[in-house]
Amino acid sequence: MERRAQTQDGENVSRALATDLYQLTMAQGYFATGMADRASIFHMFYRSPPFGGRYVVAAGIGSFSEWLETFCFSKDDLAFLATLSGAGGRPLFSRSFLDYLARWRFRGSIDAIPEGTIVFPHQPMVRVRAPLLDAQLIETPLLAIVNHQSLIATKASRVRLAAGDDEVLEFGLRRAPGLEGGLAASRAAYIGGVDATSNVLAAQRFSIPARGTHAHSWVLAFADEQEAFLAYAELFPHNSVLLVDTYETVRGVRNAIAVGRRLRQQGAELLGIRLDSGDLAYLAGEARKLLDEAGFTATKIVASGDLDEHLLCSLKSQGAPIDVWGVGTKLVTAFDEPALGGVYKLAAVDDEQGRLMERMKICDQPEKTSIPGCLDTVRLKRDGFCVGDCIFDTLSESRPDRDGGAVNIISVTHPWQNKRVTLAGISGSLLLEPLFVDGQRVGGNESVAAMRQRTLDGLAGFDRTILRLLNPHSYPAGLSEKLYQRRETLRAAGLAANRHGLPNDRTAR
Amino acid sequence: MERRAQTQDGENVSRALATDLYQLTMAQGYFATGMADRASIFHMFYRSPPFGGRYVVAAGIGSFSEWLETFCFSKDDLAFLATLSGAGGRPLFSRSFLDYLARWRFRGSIDAIPEGTIVFPHQPMVRVRAPLLDAQLIETPLLAIVNHQSLIATKASRVRLAAGDDEVLEFGLRRAPGLEGGLAASRAAYIGGVDATSNVLAAQRFSIPARGTHAHSWVLAFADEQEAFLAYAELFPHNSVLLVDTYETVRGVRNAIAVGRRLRQQGAELLGIRLDSGDLAYLAGEARKLLDEAGFTATKIVASGDLDEHLLCSLKSQGAPIDVWGVGTKLVTAFDEPALGGVYKLAAVDDEQGRLMERMKICDQPEKTSIPGCLDTVRLKRDGFCVGDCIFDTLSESRPDRDGGAVNIISVTHPWQNKRVTLAGISGSLLLEPLFVDGQRVGGNESVAAMRQRTLDGLAGFDRTILRLLNPHSYPAGLSEKLYQRRETLRAAGLAANRHGLPNDRTAR
Repeated sequence: MERRAQTQDGENVSRALATDLYQLTMAQGYFATGMADRASIFHMFYRSPPFGGRYVVAAGIGSFSEWLETFCFSKDDLAFLATLSGAGGRPLFSRSFLDYLARWRFRGSIDAIPEGTIVFPHQPMVRVRAPLLDAQLIETPLLAIVNHQSLIATKASRVRLAAGDDEVLEFGLRRAPGLEGGLAASRAAYIGGVDATSNVLAAQRFSIPARGTHAHSWVLAFADEQEAFLAYAELFPHNSVLLVDTYETVRGVRNAIAVGRRLRQQGAELLGIRLDSGDLAYLAGEARKLLDEAGFTATKIVASGDLDEHLLCSLKSQGAPIDVWGVGTKLVTAFDEPALGGVYKLAAVDDEQGRLMERMKICDQPEKTSIPGCLDTVRLKRDGFCVGDCIFDTLSESRPDRDGGAVNIISVTHPWQNKRVTLAGISGSLLLEPLFVDGQRVGGNESVAAMRQRTLDGLAGFDRTILRLLNPHSYPAGLSEKLYQRRETLRAAGLAANRHGLPNDRTAR
Repeated sequence: MERRAQTQDGENVSRALATDLYQLTMAQGYFATGMADRASIFHMFYRSPPFGGRYVVAAGIGSFSEWLETFCFSKDDLAFLATLSGAGGRPLFSRSFLDYLARWRFRGSIDAIPEGTIVFPHQPMVRVRAPLLDAQLIETPLLAIVNHQSLIATKASRVRLAAGDDEVLEFGLRRAPGLEGGLAASRAAYIGGVDATSNVLAAQRFSIPARGTHAHSWVLAFADEQEAFLAYAELFPHNSVLLVDTYETVRGVRNAIAVGRRLRQQGAELLGIRLDSGDLAYLAGEARKLLDEAGFTATKIVASGDLDEHLLCSLKSQGAPIDVWGVGTKLVTAFDEPALGGVYKLAAVDDEQGRLMERMKICDQPEKTSIPGCLDTVRLKRDGFCVGDCIFDTLSESRPDRDGGAVNIISVTHPWQNKRVTLAGISGSLLLEPLFVDGQRVGGNESVAAMRQRTLDGLAGFDRTILRLLNPHSYPAGLSEKLYQRRETLRAAGLAANRHGLPNDRTAR
């Protein structure tokens, strides 16, 4: 199969080694023990939502798909692996395994939640049905890409909620984790709901609107501030947002107004001013007064400087007349919780006889005990509003919303918490959609603009108390009754036997 | 000039657009106003050390150099820029400017602190002397790359300090900001002092030792734990570190011991076990007892699971018999402070008459007022120990350690704090080294192993109270007396005139 040399997202073909060493040693293990081709089911999901919220906005799945489409081991990759040795200097990888890798291509099927979907803990974001070796080899890139972008998209959605209908610009590249990390962050921030980015590469790759003002260095490069403003305004008469805080902000606003008057004489309008330091509530108020008094009522005030959703709420609650929010560091680093703990767990695997065996990791911590089966989530809506989400096993039960008059949703971690949703007037939809079928990509090709719209539509589909930034209300999301019972049975049997498979009596895959 | 298609660090040629839009609009401004070629001096520095510490470990400069060597605008880049428009739909960039960019290559000279150097606030980490347009165009990538890697290297150095001589493995890729972000994080973590990485690509690119164990999925793929251990040990008899907490940790240790006995019969030794959940202090103690009783005194205990320098100190203070520390999420995301606020400030620029004018941004916040001049830092050592760092202006004063009998070091933000270092027995060295001269790379080519050694040597060269993880002692780092006075003069004159340049009476550059 021909694989493209470079993907749209800029990941290179030679990214096959961007993985944890143990994925390759385990793959060799599956290869050597004859288990490589056994059918397996893995789910990627997260356990705990970030930022004190209740949800995550799924993102990164398109980027992961781009990576997977080109995933193969080059001669250089294999030559490097051949040099690796363990204790005693013996080669870590066998010649026969490396020869196998040279021919290997991903053969599995993947279903995933479309980017921009709001997803709750334990719901499968990505479901992989693949030969065991194939499923293992994709784990690390899947987690690295989807964890990162989902985290940033989630943070962006919170900024979006705080900003209401105000414009939000993402300015974070200089504090992002390198240029590629910044590209991914800009992509995810846009999916999460910001309006534009300063990152020109992200604008090019993903058709995100590009925006910018100028820096302090522009002002410093000139002999004085007004001269600097005038030069910029003459160059960009219709696109000047003047940064007014290089020296003394109020004087900076007056200089901007003087330049605004010159622009008017030429038939142009001063687009805006930007505040980047000091007390933004106070200075925005002073700036607005000066601008209005001078007749520049349409000139917008852009604020930036370590803003996040909480500062934004605080400034808005103070009535600060800020029109546009430039959000950078706190957004692209997800500053207050910079990692999403998404995991990837084996949920079923064929045994030697080709019977699909469910699997679960059992742990003292209830939330770390995984969910066996081949899962999907049905989202229940009434009058366009989401009223409950139910994870079920697609192999051993029918869709909960098509079976009886009500769905009982049981909490994953606190089973005494459950919610009964009567099905009258309910429309249900499944969250997973096909991404790869038998190694061929079939989905994840939509535009980031469409993903962003899904986020905005999704946010509008939940009660605002669930999306609240501080101490949000809980949302009924959990397991179907059958799945809950099945998991309890397996847990008890597994703990007794120290083995966590029971034959699955369904043959459907 | 021939530019390579891809750098060692994996950044692509087409990364020219990985920048903030305003760098390009400002560049067009300098081009259109005839200021593009004016000589300028910029410094990259940080103001506030992360993690409650006193210092930063510089990193990322080699990666930035790789990027800069290939920095040019491709036809595709320029075609995209030609499509950008502002308010009213007018093109943002002129044809003449885009034609200029097509021919443009970086022409400047750069000096930088070698990677692995310990650096204090306000000290120039990177000094750029370049035509104004050139210096402006490199800002965003410089900041993105050096901020990120320096942050991670600093975090790693703290983990190194906490671990003492214990082995530290970096396991963070799955929670890193994407695959490229993870590659950079692994590079920086190694520079900061970890011993090895699980990231195979980082191992290949930077000759970092690669390490790994196996995952829970390996155990789950088999019918039971002991069978899984046995299979792994047979495949890697000399490299087995068995993950014992898939079901019940103590039983897992017993299963590992059983497999260790089988290995011994074959003349191999069980290398280690890994604990990834539960109470690590308690479980490590229990595991050690069981291993020792069974005669596996050489089998190491590896611990992982959301570890950072503080948890590591806590576990060590409890006497937990852990030999090897696997550190992931908290390291590669710099979890408790995920951004380093490095900035890039204009410090001098030629005026229309070609006189070098010093420049500074003035701000109510003293720490945000920049330092004008062409700066370097002299580090003073006595008996191999660092005793003080002095920033000075290389244009207007001689080296402080070669001028008189003592150096007076004045705090940047609190000038009443100053330290007098008598020069008897002192050896001084400058921190900056040449990286680019007139657009040609001349430095930053050393191995990451050499950079890592510089970090370890550097940590050994400071009093431990300065490196302490909690509430560290301060270190005498600040300005020379002459630079302090010069800055005060400029600040007063600048505030009076709302213009921040005074002619520099030196012609030397």
